[in-house]
Amino acid sequence: MFRKKQPMWVAVMGDFKGHVLPGVFLITLGIWWTTKCVLKYAFKNQKQTSYFDPKALFCRMEMLEGIVLVGMALIGMLSGQFIPGGPHLILYNYKENQWVRLLDWHHFTIYLFFGLLGVTNILCSTIRSLPPSFSKLMLLNALFVEAFVFYNHTHGREVLDIFVHNLLFLAICLTALITFMELFIQAKITVELLRTSLFLLQGSWFWQMAFVLYPINGNPPWDLMDHNNIMFLTICFCWHYAIAIIITGAIYAFVTRLVKSRFTRFCPSEVELLKNAEREQDSEEEM
Amino acid sequence: MFRKKQPMWVAVMGDFKGHVLPGVFLITLGIWWTTKCVLKYAFKNQKQTSYFDPKALFCRMEMLEGIVLVGMALIGMLSGQFIPGGPHLILYNYKENQWVRLLDWHHFTIYLFFGLLGVTNILCSTIRSLPPSFSKLMLLNALFVEAFVFYNHTHGREVLDIFVHNLLFLAICLTALITFMELFIQAKITVELLRTSLFLLQGSWFWQMAFVLYPINGNPPWDLMDHNNIMFLTICFCWHYAIAIIITGAIYAFVTRLVKSRFTRFCPSEVELLKNAEREQDSEEEM
Amino acid sequence: MFRKKQPMWVAVMGDFKGHVLPGVFLITLGIWWTTKCVLKYAFKNQKQTSYFDPKALFCRMEMLEGIVLVGMALIGMLSGQFIPGGPHLILYNYKENQWVRLLDWHHFTIYLFFGLLGVTNILCSTIRSLPPSFSKLMLLNALFVEAFVFYNHTHGREVLDIFVHNLLFLAICLTALITFMELFIQAKITVELLRTSLFLLQGSWFWQMAFVLYPINGNPPWDLMDHNNIMFLTICFCWHYAIAIIITGAIYAFVTRLVKSRFTRFCPSEVELLKNAEREQDSEEEM
Amino acid sequence: MFRKKQPMWVAVMGDFKGHVLPGVFLITLGIWWTTKCVLKYAFKNQKQTSYFDPKALFCRMEMLEGIVLVGMALIGMLSGQFIPGGPHLILYNYKENQWVRLLDWHHFTIYLFFGLLGVTNILCSTIRSLPPSFSKLMLLNALFVEAFVFYNHTHGREVLDIFVHNLLFLAICLTALITFMELFIQAKITVELLRTSLFLLQGSWFWQMAFVLYPINGNPPWDLMDHNNIMFLTICFCWHYAIAIIITGAIYAFVTRLVKSRFTRFCPSEVELLKNAEREQDSEEEM
Repeated sequence: MFRKKQPMWVAVMGDFKGHVLPGVFLITLGIWWTTKCVLKYAFKNQKQTSYFDPKALFCRMEMLEGIVLVGMALIGMLSGQFIPGGPHLILYNYKENQWVRLLDWHHFTIYLFFGLLGVTNILCSTIRSLPPSFSKLMLLNALFVEAFVFYNHTHGREVLDIFVHNLLFLAICLTALITFMELFIQAKITVELLRTSLFLLQGSWFWQMAFVLYPINGNPPWDLMDHNNIMFLTICFCWHYAIAIIITGAIYAFVTRLVKSRFTRFCPSEVELLKNAEREQDSEEEM
Repeated sequence: MFRKKQPMWVAVMGDFKGHVLPGVFLITLGIWWTTKCVLKYAFKNQKQTSYFDPKALFCRMEMLEGIVLVGMALIGMLSGQFIPGGPHLILYNYKENQWVRLLDWHHFTIYLFFGLLGVTNILCSTIRSLPPSFSKLMLLNALFVEAFVFYNHTHGREVLDIFVHNLLFLAICLTALITFMELFIQAKITVELLRTSLFLLQGSWFWQMAFVLYPINGNPPWDLMDHNNIMFLTICFCWHYAIAIIITGAIYAFVTRLVKSRFTRFCPSEVELLKNAEREQDSEEEM
Repeated sequence: MFRKKQPMWVAVMGDFKGHVLPGVFLITLGIWWTTKCVLKYAFKNQKQTSYFDPKALFCRMEMLEGIVLVGMALIGMLSGQFIPGGPHLILYNYKENQWVRLLDWHHFTIYLFFGLLGVTNILCSTIRSLPPSFSKLMLLNALFVEAFVFYNHTHGREVLDIFVHNLLFLAICLTALITFMELFIQAKITVELLRTSLFLLQGSWFWQMAFVLYPINGNPPWDLMDHNNIMFLTICFCWHYAIAIIITGAIYAFVTRLVKSRFTRFCPSEVELLKNAEREQDSEEEM
Repeated sequence: MFRKKQPMWVAVMGDFKGHVLPGVFLITLGIWWTTKCVLKYAFKNQKQTSYFDPKALFCRMEMLEGIVLVGMALIGMLSGQFIPGGPHLILYNYKENQWVRLLDWHHFTIYLFFGLLGVTNILCSTIRSLPPSFSKLMLLNALFVEAFVFYNHTHGREVLDIFVHNLLFLAICLTALITFMELFIQAKITVELLRTSLFLLQGSWFWQMAFVLYPINGNPPWDLMDHNNIMFLTICFCWHYAIAIIITGAIYAFVTRLVKSRFTRFCPSEVELLKNAEREQDSEEEM
């Protein structure tokens, strides 16, 4: 803290696994939230014809989600702290008068807020009197902290390294913006799918970052100063997003079909007609 | 990718036609969307007096729009790839270890997302159970990708070149912002006309860019370093927008008059009175 | 346009009167809009007790407003063009191959859009079928153009000159943001008063700029490079805003009192009770 | 004002107490607003079962809040002006031709606007016809001025000093953004708690700033140029926010429990059932 010498470990910070792990987490969450959101929408549309009440199911799913989130956060926090060379929960080295591996503490903080999100999820699904929007609020906080930390994360690195982190920052900011708006205005399914597809983008971009910054299997490393690589990663980011959109669309098609086939088998024809009329009206209103 | 030498083709990238083509596309789309939006509004106001149901018409128009969009996107993608000197769908040249004409791939990516918008339009108009707001979502995605790519498009160019691209970026961002808000809040006609007039602005600005950056017929080229040109293009951008507003207004006047004259010819006087009363109420509410 | 030599007239651009004139216009508009907005609110609250229908009055006021706006815009445009040394509607000097007094054309463009706002006001108040929100849309456009032009207006000037223009830019942007939101969400009186007080701020800031940049009566000129002056103008801007808020509050108090005393003189006590009950409910809802 | 020599007092500006005082004010306000907001929510939910009308209570609380705010503002303004070496209400030293301690005038301006907020609170709680949202408008103005002044407050300081002020600026901007949105859209409790937790963050960050910039008790000063300190303060900011969230949650739990135990003791079982049914419906809607 009081020395100006750049500490040695800056060169070895971050590695392939440290970027793949959050990528896996975020893709899992993205797929899960997309599925949940489409399921809710499908059940809501199915209401007239089905005798199955999905409410208890969703409540249990919410709790499970919270537990999984807390688990992910713990894995992320502990693996970052106790890898060989990690800070081992020591923040400040009084002998050498310097902070201990602050970048690992950055990751720790992000995981901590996602853990808080998990705890809020569990609380909201067990304590009935809590407003359900509290878990959305904590999601906003987690995204805000993630964006904030990544913004202050890349001091003194190479151009390309900063660029890929900035793209991640952009994706997080957009997700946070959408979540912020959702706090004010009751979200339609379109907005929720936009948010979940951005989570998929975040996750897959973590993978891309891992492959760009820490090439494996003896691949030649990318030239971190070459502007053409930035030009390529620009479009690569868009293609990742295109894939995220297509995956979201596939999940939508699959889940809607599944709910339809499972829960409307014995639907009498009158109800079917009624439903159609209603759907027509809905789509008219939305138009 | 691993070389620092600036590749030779940077000097020849972009040309007059490459900027005129998207300009034509965007102006066409802008005029079309303005017409559609005013038509819908006029028919909604006409509802009480006319016996013509425009719903099937709009559905067919939506599908046609999707097909045209896909066609435009294909033309844009293929013409960018297979012009003489284009990348011919090759992304990376392994012999020379460098990326192949990335700026063309940038344009390709933008067209790709507008193509996806077209596909979504077609799907939304054929599959009845899809929420119609999906095509608005894809429009937002297309605009976001367009803005993002143009932001990372102008590395190492002259001041004036960057400036005109930044103005385009500004117009796209504003359009995206409006579309984003429309996802949350049911849009009134005012907002939709604002969006479509910004599309007209984008289109006509592409033309302006073509004339500024690639002068034809032996005109002397603009001095790309002269700040006075920037000062002029600032107001030129505003005048383009003024023209876009006037065109939007003209379309509004023309379409409203057309619908009125065509569909209310045999309107009995009682209904007319009823309509007037209602319109009064509407305008009062809006006030 | 093709020369790099800085033209001579840059030194003499802008003067005291050129900043005082828009200041007067904006303060007039600000006071007028505040009055109109409070009037509408007061009449709405008075509805139960008064037999006076303010609708025709407001419609005529709207038209008058449009005519005044067009007049202001014409005065601004013509005085900027035909002052001695002005561009006299000549945009490009083909002899010397350079643009003619572009900064005057900047002002011209801003006035033009406020003129369009006036035209829209007149149209909206005469043609009954036009949505009244069109004039709000044109206000947004005028503000957007004003902000955009001022952002590109201060190339190569002194630090303090740029700073005072940036503060103006900030005020315009905030006003535009509020107007943008009003397009989507039906505004309450609070939001409208916020917008009109920002107009007052803009107007009084134009005056401040005139006194800082073009001192009159032989006052010593401000040191445009001294950072302490920036520090002072920062708080000066806030104090201008405080005064704008106080003026808005005074207008609110005065107009509300006036409407109450004029239009409820013979109000029977039962109606008074009814009104009180209703107001209570309103304030409860708002709470 | 006309001299370029940096005045001597720049070195001694700001001190430990000057940062602790607003910290105490903001934390007090944050805790108070959180409590008030949860109280309102709890009473609203309790409505069916309790015979206690909290309206008069809230009105009196509002007035008390206004008086306390005015008191705080006066303390802040006077202590800043009349400390030894303070400006003593003198703005400009005509002898030395320079501004007098402008940074103290900056603080003065911020306190002034919070004082205006207090005055508005008092007016809104005494004059029944004023819309209650006026005090929210003044809160927005106070936050805007606070953000604006802090943005222009740190000219020529050390990197770390600027960084901690920028974090404060970020927190204020977020609070202002939320307040701005609340002007348009009726806020739910979630949004209000977000806002109040950001006030807690602001307050505790003032304390952090005091300890970082003006170490007491002979502690060694922080190295204001060391980037590792910036890295640490990044996560420190997040941890402050985590603590603010936890405090908000604790207040929520405590107040909800208190209201439940105090005001529903004699609640008949039928009403209890009714309430449960209603709450279920609410949470369903929110889902």
